[in-house]
Amino acid sequence: MSAELKGKLVVGQSGGCTAVINSSLVGVVEEAQTHRCIRGVLGMLHGIEGLLRGEVVDLSAERPSTLQALRRTPSAALGSCRYRLQDDDIAQIIDQLRRHDVRYFVYIGGNDSADTSLRVSRAAQEVGYEMRVMAVPKTIDNDLPVTDHCPGYGSIARFVAQSTRDAGMDTEAMKRYDPVKIVEVMGRDAGWVAAASALGKRDPADAPHLIYVPEVVFDEARFLDDVRRVHGEIGYVVVVLTETIRDARGRVVGSDKPYFVDPFGHGYYESPAAYLCRLVTRELGLRARFDKPGTIQRMSMALASGVDLEEAHLVGRRAVKYAVEGRSGQMVVLVRENGSGYRCITDSAPLEEIANAVKPLPREFLNADGNFVSDGFLRYATPLIGGPLLEYARLERHPVAEW
Amino acid sequence: MSAELKGKLVVGQSGGCTAVINSSLVGVVEEAQTHRCIRGVLGMLHGIEGLLRGEVVDLSAERPSTLQALRRTPSAALGSCRYRLQDDDIAQIIDQLRRHDVRYFVYIGGNDSADTSLRVSRAAQEVGYEMRVMAVPKTIDNDLPVTDHCPGYGSIARFVAQSTRDAGMDTEAMKRYDPVKIVEVMGRDAGWVAAASALGKRDPADAPHLIYVPEVVFDEARFLDDVRRVHGEIGYVVVVLTETIRDARGRVVGSDKPYFVDPFGHGYYESPAAYLCRLVTRELGLRARFDKPGTIQRMSMALASGVDLEEAHLVGRRAVKYAVEGRSGQMVVLVRENGSGYRCITDSAPLEEIANAVKPLPREFLNADGNFVSDGFLRYATPLIGGPLLEYARLERHPVAEW
Repeated sequence: MSAELKGKLVVGQSGGCTAVINSSLVGVVEEAQTHRCIRGVLGMLHGIEGLLRGEVVDLSAERPSTLQALRRTPSAALGSCRYRLQDDDIAQIIDQLRRHDVRYFVYIGGNDSADTSLRVSRAAQEVGYEMRVMAVPKTIDNDLPVTDHCPGYGSIARFVAQSTRDAGMDTEAMKRYDPVKIVEVMGRDAGWVAAASALGKRDPADAPHLIYVPEVVFDEARFLDDVRRVHGEIGYVVVVLTETIRDARGRVVGSDKPYFVDPFGHGYYESPAAYLCRLVTRELGLRARFDKPGTIQRMSMALASGVDLEEAHLVGRRAVKYAVEGRSGQMVVLVRENGSGYRCITDSAPLEEIANAVKPLPREFLNADGNFVSDGFLRYATPLIGGPLLEYARLERHPVAEW
Repeated sequence: MSAELKGKLVVGQSGGCTAVINSSLVGVVEEAQTHRCIRGVLGMLHGIEGLLRGEVVDLSAERPSTLQALRRTPSAALGSCRYRLQDDDIAQIIDQLRRHDVRYFVYIGGNDSADTSLRVSRAAQEVGYEMRVMAVPKTIDNDLPVTDHCPGYGSIARFVAQSTRDAGMDTEAMKRYDPVKIVEVMGRDAGWVAAASALGKRDPADAPHLIYVPEVVFDEARFLDDVRRVHGEIGYVVVVLTETIRDARGRVVGSDKPYFVDPFGHGYYESPAAYLCRLVTRELGLRARFDKPGTIQRMSMALASGVDLEEAHLVGRRAVKYAVEGRSGQMVVLVRENGSGYRCITDSAPLEEIANAVKPLPREFLNADGNFVSDGFLRYATPLIGGPLLEYARLERHPVAEW
């Protein structure tokens, strides 16, 4: 262990909200309060941008009951940001942190946030200011490298699995009138969230029937063939797809260009589902509807995963513990242990390996046709949603003879 | 009480699915099994259309454990329909029912289904076939006349209230990047579902901030003014609207014409929310996103209302009880009792008063500007969602001086 480093800790939340990012925040605050070398816990409002603006709050002054309740509160209690650091900002940030004797910098976020942490870490080193920087993983996209999975993913996976089952039963009951449903989910450029829709499926006839992800080139003709085939086989079709599925030319399906580009260069597109509903109705003569749960899917505490809530808290605690022990310039990662049963331990990995990188859904987590998940994916993801979904019943439907 | 009428009972489910329509079905089956005059309980698959096709099942043969589990299973376990009866069909139906000695006809559905029940009831009378016809109210739209409210509404209201709170907290945390959110909900031509989004609001600054319903003419310029004003006041804006809001010319906002018209003449439109997001981004320079929970909102057992589940079961039971007692050509209705505390009893009303009629959101349930609900609405609807929403916390945010 390195020499004890005395000073304050500052923590921020960054990127898209999740159901469990506040659990990580509480983990950071609670762990910090157990270390005497940490002389106060500060929070940045709206992440690094709030820090720059001097919008900093004293988390040590919050009531324990508030912190406990935050473990079951979605969103980002400190406010979040998508601010991309300018070079000029970094000197100012180091100066501010030095002036307030902040020696621990903890940033909860995804790929872009890891980049922010890395740049702050390097800048502190360059000017010889001793400060330990730790990133806490958070993204519903589940696309961070190194870590087995990302806090936030288990909960959105549970929401999407349950909601696809629910929406699929609706389509099954209405199949003679609304036979095709498309559920459009998040996931940016990775198919992890869409893949999770299969976690509630028990029988081959259950929804979802088709899953399309950004890792596989989307082909309209093949899609129409798939929909026609499933409809012929079972009389209705539930499709789940990521909002950024792309054609062979790299264009998001149904959009010529993004209608908005964020400061990190990520584009936001019109709904591929709306476009594909029109296509199916026109080309196959089957009425198609779409559900786009949008931000509701990443904020649902009612369908949050207990495993995810616990792990989010744990990685928050571990970020502080590792920093106190001397680690810096790292992100906490979850490491799945071998053996029967699910168990993850924590470790940390250099931010260089994580910042701005992405981990797509591996090919072996998809079927041969690239339009559904494999058993390998189900084995990987099932433990993350924290137990079985709601139990539903079906009638046995004993026919009445000679009606 | 009329003379005891002996014979079989047939029950069907019709129209859009809900989280609680199976509770009504179970209520029908359970009550029927307590009356010795009912010599068997049959179910139509996919409503009246299944009856015509001879797709009839024996519900007496289902296991009690299946029925119990169906009380917590969304969708329509018998399958549903949107079939509009042809005149030729009715003679065939009466003939089928007579041949199988069906003397009780129970149909669970909304406005259109009440019309089906009414026509079956009249046809039986005309040919002198003694059969008692009862409708069981079911619609998330909450637009049936006479009844205080409709089973299905309390549960979608709970989902929409909770999800708007969740999505609103997301927008609040992300307000510097995604300051405007539009949540598009169901409700056909009535604003009851959109209005329910206000049931989770505690503070004037909480989401939702603006609610637009089909009962009020939608004006784009006023909408933009509203969004600009709320954004200026609190820095972010959460709008909830019904998928069928219309402009002064009667056109659904953002659509020139429906992309689909069902057999009852109800049109289905493109998403007004997608159109209005583009409008806000272009005209106000504020990035806008939309959530469209679609069929997920009417199917969520995780957020179903306990009050709604119980009442749905009750109206199913009462339909059978009333029929055995001699009522016919009626729909079961819920009657709210005066006094402190919430309590509903049941009665029934003639189908003539209900079939094809609609009950819009009354003007006094909206504010003067027609862009939010009134306290009167909150008093009416709060008991229906079955208790408080999830408890969330907020940081007190004690500022750090001289940062």
